[in-house]
Amino acid sequence: MHNDVPTGAAGHASSRSLVLDAIRAAGTISRVELTQTTGLTGATISTVVRRLIDDGLVVETGRGESTGGKPRVLLELEPSSRYAVGINLDHAGIHFAISDLGGHIVSSGSLPGAGSENPRAVLTRTWRDVEAALESEGIAREKVLGIGFVSPGPIHLPVGMTFVPPFMQAWADFPLRETMASLSGLPVLLENDATASAIGEYWVGGVEHTTAFGTLFLGTGIGSGVLVNGAVYRGASSNAGEIGHVCVDVAGPACWCGSRGCVEAIAGAGAVVRKAAELGIELPGETDVERFTHLATAAQRGEQPARTLLEESAEVVAIAAQTLANIMDLGYIVLTGPVIALAADIYEPAVVARLKGAFFARLNHRIRVGVSAHADRAAAMGGAALVLHSELAPRRPGPGRPVVR
Amino acid sequence: MHNDVPTGAAGHASSRSLVLDAIRAAGTISRVELTQTTGLTGATISTVVRRLIDDGLVVETGRGESTGGKPRVLLELEPSSRYAVGINLDHAGIHFAISDLGGHIVSSGSLPGAGSENPRAVLTRTWRDVEAALESEGIAREKVLGIGFVSPGPIHLPVGMTFVPPFMQAWADFPLRETMASLSGLPVLLENDATASAIGEYWVGGVEHTTAFGTLFLGTGIGSGVLVNGAVYRGASSNAGEIGHVCVDVAGPACWCGSRGCVEAIAGAGAVVRKAAELGIELPGETDVERFTHLATAAQRGEQPARTLLEESAEVVAIAAQTLANIMDLGYIVLTGPVIALAADIYEPAVVARLKGAFFARLNHRIRVGVSAHADRAAAMGGAALVLHSELAPRRPGPGRPVVR
Repeated sequence: MHNDVPTGAAGHASSRSLVLDAIRAAGTISRVELTQTTGLTGATISTVVRRLIDDGLVVETGRGESTGGKPRVLLELEPSSRYAVGINLDHAGIHFAISDLGGHIVSSGSLPGAGSENPRAVLTRTWRDVEAALESEGIAREKVLGIGFVSPGPIHLPVGMTFVPPFMQAWADFPLRETMASLSGLPVLLENDATASAIGEYWVGGVEHTTAFGTLFLGTGIGSGVLVNGAVYRGASSNAGEIGHVCVDVAGPACWCGSRGCVEAIAGAGAVVRKAAELGIELPGETDVERFTHLATAAQRGEQPARTLLEESAEVVAIAAQTLANIMDLGYIVLTGPVIALAADIYEPAVVARLKGAFFARLNHRIRVGVSAHADRAAAMGGAALVLHSELAPRRPGPGRPVVR
Repeated sequence: MHNDVPTGAAGHASSRSLVLDAIRAAGTISRVELTQTTGLTGATISTVVRRLIDDGLVVETGRGESTGGKPRVLLELEPSSRYAVGINLDHAGIHFAISDLGGHIVSSGSLPGAGSENPRAVLTRTWRDVEAALESEGIAREKVLGIGFVSPGPIHLPVGMTFVPPFMQAWADFPLRETMASLSGLPVLLENDATASAIGEYWVGGVEHTTAFGTLFLGTGIGSGVLVNGAVYRGASSNAGEIGHVCVDVAGPACWCGSRGCVEAIAGAGAVVRKAAELGIELPGETDVERFTHLATAAQRGEQPARTLLEESAEVVAIAAQTLANIMDLGYIVLTGPVIALAADIYEPAVVARLKGAFFARLNHRIRVGVSAHADRAAAMGGAALVLHSELAPRRPGPGRPVVR
């Protein structure tokens, strides 16, 4: 861990994050153990811990076993000392989640999706609901670290979405970050749903620190997020992981992104619903995800051709998983998002089978496949986790730029 | 740059690398400028520079313009103070390159490929040739930092290749690293050809430090290497970037890796040569790359169907480039390897055209496409660059594990 300690201008903020993350990971830990875990000096640990206690983020709790001499005081996070808000905006619905410092969701809720409504009006009503939830939980504004605002990618971090699916054109170039910050008076971080889901899974799912880990997020769109050694892989513009827009069939259907034969255009919720319509299956609902929900329910009952349609989608999603795993050399991949919440039993076996036979580094190491326990609200939870990650995770230079604060 | 300075146990080695890399990047630089560039203190710079001068790696050279007070002494690398050896082993041929500390190739050579020969015998004759080249250049053994041994992936860094193409089965589980080290008495780093080509391009091609940058390497196989902020993206087992084994046609031909419709199985040199044979085109040569050379020559003359075969391959390679760019969010991609050395004029336009219309983050930032000036010996040069990178590049924790030393 020594190497993760930056020095210089960012030193204090980073030592603080490093110590906070070490306390979080350990549950309870002594100051002596903190010097061992973080590689920081005893003097630095003393100073940092003193400030964390003064700020109420950390409390002293009982005494650990002594290795000789006086018993060591144990430290732990004070979960209710700070909170984070995650908001997931999608055409299909708006979800929010409020998390405490320990990553536990204390409140969550849903609103009607953005649809064609004016962006400012959507943000205003969303914030009104979040504010009501904060009040009803008795959470003071000054205890909220910030908002993680999550939407379908790609995003331009300093501003908002610059390239949006056709049904969200009103959001293109809208100053999302600025508007949300001015409405709430809180710092706002932006993230795409897939990356947020990976941060959320890392945060609540107990993913091992050293694993090259990715989520495959299946919602209105298909995307992925990757963390290596706890840092998000971001690439040149924080639009990495666009697995939904890799071509798996050069002669395949046109995609809204301008390409053809994209994974999303063949196997996304919208594509599956359209294929069902072509087969004469009537599906109620206003959005693709709503219609997909009905199709998935039919598939779960074993109805044909609903089940076959989902199985065909799962085969293509499995190729996407293989592509992601081969390029990023993942050790662990988690399936998540609303589509997985509805049909994990169809998608997971297809992914497992394909990786078993076609993951390129399979003789070097195994790749685990998991299903998120929070697939239905992965993006909103990821938004809250994004804020916690930004506050707690040690800054890591190199690949994976630090989250914009 | 502050954040890139690790502290603790690795502190000294890393400060040294950081200073060396800053001097290399600047050409000439003063101690005062070094404190500004590296974020290290004046005292640390003094100590580190003193040792580098004592070791002969850095020399004082003339005086820069003063900003007031006494003129500043300028420092620069002494290129002939250290050397690195790159060896590229492939079925099709063995190439080596000897580079000085400045990244200039001072000697290179080729030997017949590994074929079905005993691995130890292959390594013995290879080292004999490298040793002769070192002697003829008057390079003393103690000036050689190490050997970068490059082969088609995937590799298991501590040992050697664990999963090899069918024509190289004799190398599976052979203790390559240990054998080469004991033959040469030098430290040996292992790398796959695609990753090595990226390090080589970064090192000699003046790739910007902050760019998410990748190479698409087309040789016997197809692979890619990615560097972000100067650090190699390695994933879980240093087998990241396996773009040749992503599926672009679920009904496509079987691949030796166990999957179907892989980029390599459709568009690799071997696949193109087999398609030519099916069309009755006779191609001399013992290896796929040799036969591809003849086909490419015919294509350059405008002969059909040779040109069409290469154009079809280029279309699929372009999909691979799009996939890599979309998942890794690249800002710059360089085409390299023996196939590119033969037919860049066919592959480059196809890649440029596809990225122009289908790179997902194209509204966020442009993606540049380049062709390596050293495509024909990219892997051997990359091997030498790997050693220099390991010696000179600042260690960066987080994603992209440091190169095994």
